[in-house]
Amino acid sequence: MKPHNDTLLRALLRQPTEYTPVWLMRQAGRYMAEYNATRKRAGSFLGLAKSPAFATEVTMQPIDRFPLDAAILFSDILTVPDAMGLGLYFAEGEGPKFERPVRTEADVARLTAPDPGAELRYVTDAVREIRRALAGRVPLIGFSGSPFTLACYMVEGGGSDDFRLIKTMMYARPDLLHAILRVNAKAVADYLNAQIEAGAQAVMIFDTWGGALADGAYQAFSLAYMRQVVAQLKRERDGERVPSIVFTKGGGLWLEGIADTGCDAVGVDWTVNLGRARAQIGNRCALQGNLDPMALFAPADVIRSQAAQVLDAFGPPRNADGTWAGHVFNLGHGISQFTPPENVAILVDAVHSHSRTLRT
Amino acid sequence: MKPHNDTLLRALLRQPTEYTPVWLMRQAGRYMAEYNATRKRAGSFLGLAKSPAFATEVTMQPIDRFPLDAAILFSDILTVPDAMGLGLYFAEGEGPKFERPVRTEADVARLTAPDPGAELRYVTDAVREIRRALAGRVPLIGFSGSPFTLACYMVEGGGSDDFRLIKTMMYARPDLLHAILRVNAKAVADYLNAQIEAGAQAVMIFDTWGGALADGAYQAFSLAYMRQVVAQLKRERDGERVPSIVFTKGGGLWLEGIADTGCDAVGVDWTVNLGRARAQIGNRCALQGNLDPMALFAPADVIRSQAAQVLDAFGPPRNADGTWAGHVFNLGHGISQFTPPENVAILVDAVHSHSRTLRT
Repeated sequence: MKPHNDTLLRALLRQPTEYTPVWLMRQAGRYMAEYNATRKRAGSFLGLAKSPAFATEVTMQPIDRFPLDAAILFSDILTVPDAMGLGLYFAEGEGPKFERPVRTEADVARLTAPDPGAELRYVTDAVREIRRALAGRVPLIGFSGSPFTLACYMVEGGGSDDFRLIKTMMYARPDLLHAILRVNAKAVADYLNAQIEAGAQAVMIFDTWGGALADGAYQAFSLAYMRQVVAQLKRERDGERVPSIVFTKGGGLWLEGIADTGCDAVGVDWTVNLGRARAQIGNRCALQGNLDPMALFAPADVIRSQAAQVLDAFGPPRNADGTWAGHVFNLGHGISQFTPPENVAILVDAVHSHSRTLRT
Repeated sequence: MKPHNDTLLRALLRQPTEYTPVWLMRQAGRYMAEYNATRKRAGSFLGLAKSPAFATEVTMQPIDRFPLDAAILFSDILTVPDAMGLGLYFAEGEGPKFERPVRTEADVARLTAPDPGAELRYVTDAVREIRRALAGRVPLIGFSGSPFTLACYMVEGGGSDDFRLIKTMMYARPDLLHAILRVNAKAVADYLNAQIEAGAQAVMIFDTWGGALADGAYQAFSLAYMRQVVAQLKRERDGERVPSIVFTKGGGLWLEGIADTGCDAVGVDWTVNLGRARAQIGNRCALQGNLDPMALFAPADVIRSQAAQVLDAFGPPRNADGTWAGHVFNLGHGISQFTPPENVAILVDAVHSHSRTLRT
C-alpha cells in the first residue's frame, strides 16, 4: 500500500513530485531529548536497538516532531556481524567493538550469513511494528552497512582511523578478504530482503568506509560486492517498486561506478557538486544529499540559504527533455548529536518551501 | 646550486627524467628507530622540532638509509600559529593543542602574521643547517600547512573529527574566518619565502583538512587562500626555479581548481586515479602521489606490484606530443608509524626500477 505521502518514493524513482522530499541520516538520535529519554529507559544502546518496541518509539520521534518525508528504521549498523556470532558490545565512550574479530583463515572459514528470520528477527519485528505505527504517513526506509564497511569492523574489531588490519589483509591476503566479503554480500542481501518482506518501502546501503580505499581497491573490494547485493534485492513488494539507495561516504570520484550497481539512487556527501553529479549520472539514478551537517549550527537565515544552495546546485526538477530528475534532500552524513532540534524544523521547512518555488 | 640528484626538481617542472623520483610524506618519523632515539634525546616533540641541530639530524636519517630523491624539512605543521602566540603544546597521547584558541572577534583582531626572521628563526636556521648536511645530495623541500588547515587547529584549539567550531564560525560568521585566513595566507607566504631564502629548493602546502569542506566552501575558504599564497611565492632563487606543490587531502574532486592556483605540482591521495588526473590537469601541472600508505604492510612482491600499478596508472612519462609529463612518486598521506622500515627500501627500489622500464 502506498503511503499517504509517497514523495520520497517518487523522487527515488524519478517521477514527478510537488516538492523535494527530505529526511536526515541519523534523524532519530542524540540531538533529540525524546531519544535520550527513551535510551535511558532502555538501559543501553543495544537494549534500545534490539527491542522492537523501543526501536519503533525512537524511529517515530522525528516523524512526530518534524514534517519529514521518510522514516528510517532505527537500528545499529553492526547487527549483521553481531548475528554472525562476533559478539558486539559497546565500551563506554569508545564506540562499537567485537569480542571475536575475524583475522585468521580459521576465523574466516567459520563465517556464515545469518538467517534474518532467526538471529535478526528483532529487526524484522521492528520493521513491522514501525509500519503499524506509521500507519501510512510516510514511507519506511530499511538499511544495512555495505559488505566492505561491515568487514572493516569485523576485521579491525571496532572503529579505526587507518584501517591498518583490514588493509593489511587486503594487500597481503586478498583471498581472505574476498571470502569475508562474499559472505557479507549474501548476508546483506538476505537482511535487506527480509526488511523488504517485513515492510521496508525503500532500502539504503551505507558504505561508510569505502571512501578509505584506493582507486582500484574500492572497485574490487567495496563496489563489486554492493553490486552483488543490489542484484539480489527484491525490486517489488505488493506490486510497489522498492527503490534502493547506495551511499559511499567520500565516494564522489566513483559516482559512475555506483550508478552502475543498478541502484535507483546514489547518496553523495557534501564534497560533491550536485549539478556536476546530476550531469554525470542523473540520467540513470536519482541523487540523495548533500548538506554539510555542520550547517545546522548556523543562524536560521543561513540554514535557509544553505538549503537553497543545495537545491539550486541540483537545479530544476525537470531535465531539458521534460523528464523528471530525482533529488532527495539529506545531509551528507549523519546529523550531529549537538544540533539544536529547532534548526531541523527550519531546514525541513526551507527545503519544502524553496523546492516548491523551483517548480513554478 | 643544483643538487647532484635533481630528479625531483625536474619532475616537478615537467622536464625529462631518467626515472620517477620518490620521497615519502613523514619520511622522517616514528617508524625509524633512529628517529625515536633522537626524539628521546631531545626530550619532547617540540624540543626536537624547535632545535635546528635535532631537526637536521632527523631530516637526514631517511636520506642516509634509503636512496630517496628528496629531503623534507622536519618541522611541525603548527609552527606558524605557535609563532602567532597561541601557545602550542602536546598533551600526552592527544596530539597538538593551543592554549589560546581563536574564537571571538577580539581573538581575531589580535592576530598578526609572525616575522619569520624572528619568531620562526629556528626553522630557517634548520633549513640552512640541513642544506649544509645534504651537501647537494638531493633537494630540500620546505613546507607549511595551508591557511585553512592552520585555521582548523587555531579555532578548534586542537584536532577535531567534525570541525564543529570552525564550521560554525564559517557558516555563522564567515567574516571572522575570512579575517583569520587573510592573516594566515600572508603568514604562510612569508614563511615559505623565508624557507626559500634560507635554501629550500621546492615548497609544499599541506591542506590536510580542506577535504572536510563542502563543495563551494572549499573554493571560498581553502583554495582561494592557497591561490594567494602561491601568487606571493618567490619563483626563483640564485637563478634556479623553486617549484611549488599543493596537496589537499580528499581534494580529488577539485583538481582543476588546485591546478589553477598556479602551483607547479598537485599532490593527490590514493582515492584519485592518476591517469584520469593526468588527463584533467597534466598539461598544466606535475602530479605527486599516490600509494596507500597501508600497502607498505604487504609482502615484498605486493609492494612491488602496488608501486608498479601507481606508476602504470600515471602512464608513460612522455605525452603524445613528445613533451614530458611530471610524476613524483609519494604516498597518498604520511607513512604509518608502524611501517617496517625494510619495506620502504623495497618501495624506493621498486619505483626506481619499474619507472626506468617505462622509459625504454
